[in-house]
Amino acid sequence: MKVSAPATIANFGPGFDVFGLCLEKPMDVIEVKLADEVEVKVEGYEVPEDPSRNVASVSALSLLGEVGVESGFKMKIKKGIRPTSGLGSSGASALGGALAIAKLLGVEDKETILRAALEGEKVASGTPHGDNVVPALFGGFVVLNSLFPLNVVKIDVKLKLVVVLPEVKVSTKKARELLPKYVPLRDAVKNLALASSLVLALEEGDIEEAGRLLDDYLAIPYRKPLIAWFDKVRRAALENGAYGLSISGSGPAVFALGDNLKEIGKAVVEAFEEEGIKAEYFISGVGGGAE
Amino acid sequence: MKVSAPATIANFGPGFDVFGLCLEKPMDVIEVKLADEVEVKVEGYEVPEDPSRNVASVSALSLLGEVGVESGFKMKIKKGIRPTSGLGSSGASALGGALAIAKLLGVEDKETILRAALEGEKVASGTPHGDNVVPALFGGFVVLNSLFPLNVVKIDVKLKLVVVLPEVKVSTKKARELLPKYVPLRDAVKNLALASSLVLALEEGDIEEAGRLLDDYLAIPYRKPLIAWFDKVRRAALENGAYGLSISGSGPAVFALGDNLKEIGKAVVEAFEEEGIKAEYFISGVGGGAE
Repeated sequence: MKVSAPATIANFGPGFDVFGLCLEKPMDVIEVKLADEVEVKVEGYEVPEDPSRNVASVSALSLLGEVGVESGFKMKIKKGIRPTSGLGSSGASALGGALAIAKLLGVEDKETILRAALEGEKVASGTPHGDNVVPALFGGFVVLNSLFPLNVVKIDVKLKLVVVLPEVKVSTKKARELLPKYVPLRDAVKNLALASSLVLALEEGDIEEAGRLLDDYLAIPYRKPLIAWFDKVRRAALENGAYGLSISGSGPAVFALGDNLKEIGKAVVEAFEEEGIKAEYFISGVGGGAE
Repeated sequence: MKVSAPATIANFGPGFDVFGLCLEKPMDVIEVKLADEVEVKVEGYEVPEDPSRNVASVSALSLLGEVGVESGFKMKIKKGIRPTSGLGSSGASALGGALAIAKLLGVEDKETILRAALEGEKVASGTPHGDNVVPALFGGFVVLNSLFPLNVVKIDVKLKLVVVLPEVKVSTKKARELLPKYVPLRDAVKNLALASSLVLALEEGDIEEAGRLLDDYLAIPYRKPLIAWFDKVRRAALENGAYGLSISGSGPAVFALGDNLKEIGKAVVEAFEEEGIKAEYFISGVGGGAE
């Protein structure tokens, strides 16, 4: 069984812990067959091959445990998503591992697959959240209302965006530790308004309006110490025609909506370089989810 | 010039200070003609006839001031919306007063009208919010993203709902004073997810799902001291087939979505009566806004 698990953009502006968009690329490809032992081989970006520390393997083992099948497996991972990039690298591997085993065994129940995938995610990020795993499974743009019981609204949005990936690391765990337990009610209301308007703009395919709504008062302001370059990079995008720019998950990857995505990508890369940070950009459409 | 200004449901579940729905009924009817003096006559529910304390008159005066026209007016108000009912009574009067004068003078700019209407609202509620005035102007279901500059998304939703109006008063000012300045980030995220899912459900006309999403963590929990009967009344609605029930604005009116609206209305009225509170229900569709 061979599964491709795509990169995802969590939060997507105002939708902290709720919104997620599935990208066409990059992706992890995970090949699995049942075996007596458990063996993990990794190509591409470096991640642990130790089955108890490899995210895909942990979620695969978790799925086997959950459905009560005693078996090992041989797993080959082509790791195409850079770890700690903010593009849902661990979420993709976690989903891929669980999904590959599920398909092998004929398990179709999405909650079972997600439960196992979150066990894998836990290895990488401490507290697992569904906002990468869920869009990687469903594809499109998702509003994650509740994980268990699973309540997801999917929007089949068509858009292209530019993603800029700087060569810095942002630890998801540290980014989460910076968040306050309490936020101003005013800010909660602002995000609620932005988020509700954004999903309607996406539903109507109004990408320009969606871009203008890519603002956030709940997470990004508190994470500024880890992403000191954010305002500068955002300004560069807006000055070069972007409708909006935000952080993918907890970063460092950023994404922008606009017409002239190449120019925006180049301008953002330059802005990073002015801060002494190497960066690259790529353009992606919306992906259809793991296959 | 004769203007009808309808009742509205602010907040509409998770959309605190952001969502508003325009009802078909009840409504205020405001008749205005320019004159030398300022004179206000009221029929129906009792509100002040003193022009400096009457909401509709204050907003009418404010509009005259804003466009620089020196004139008085004679105003007749048929007050059809009960004050302090939670159904946007002051918002409707405020909008009606401003709109009637605006139409008389040929002023079409919505921001000018809203600015004047909010001056009127301020008389009634201290801090004016747009979540009654805006849906009363636009009709349908609105997401109020920003007042100045005006950024409103409108959903032309078709639904019927039952409104139950108990004979108790809830002061909007007191209800607002009960709100904390800070709320748990978790709750902000929950409301954001509910709100985003709710607008999508309404956009798709999935009223059953919309009803299930009528939950709120930002305002209602803190207002329980003023609406001690809320959980009981809600349970009565759900047990009688409602998809969901919530408070209209800061109450005391509640509204429910469902198929069998009459039965739900009766059950909720009974639940109020068991608490020693007289109540009545009515069924309304979505209104098209002030005319």
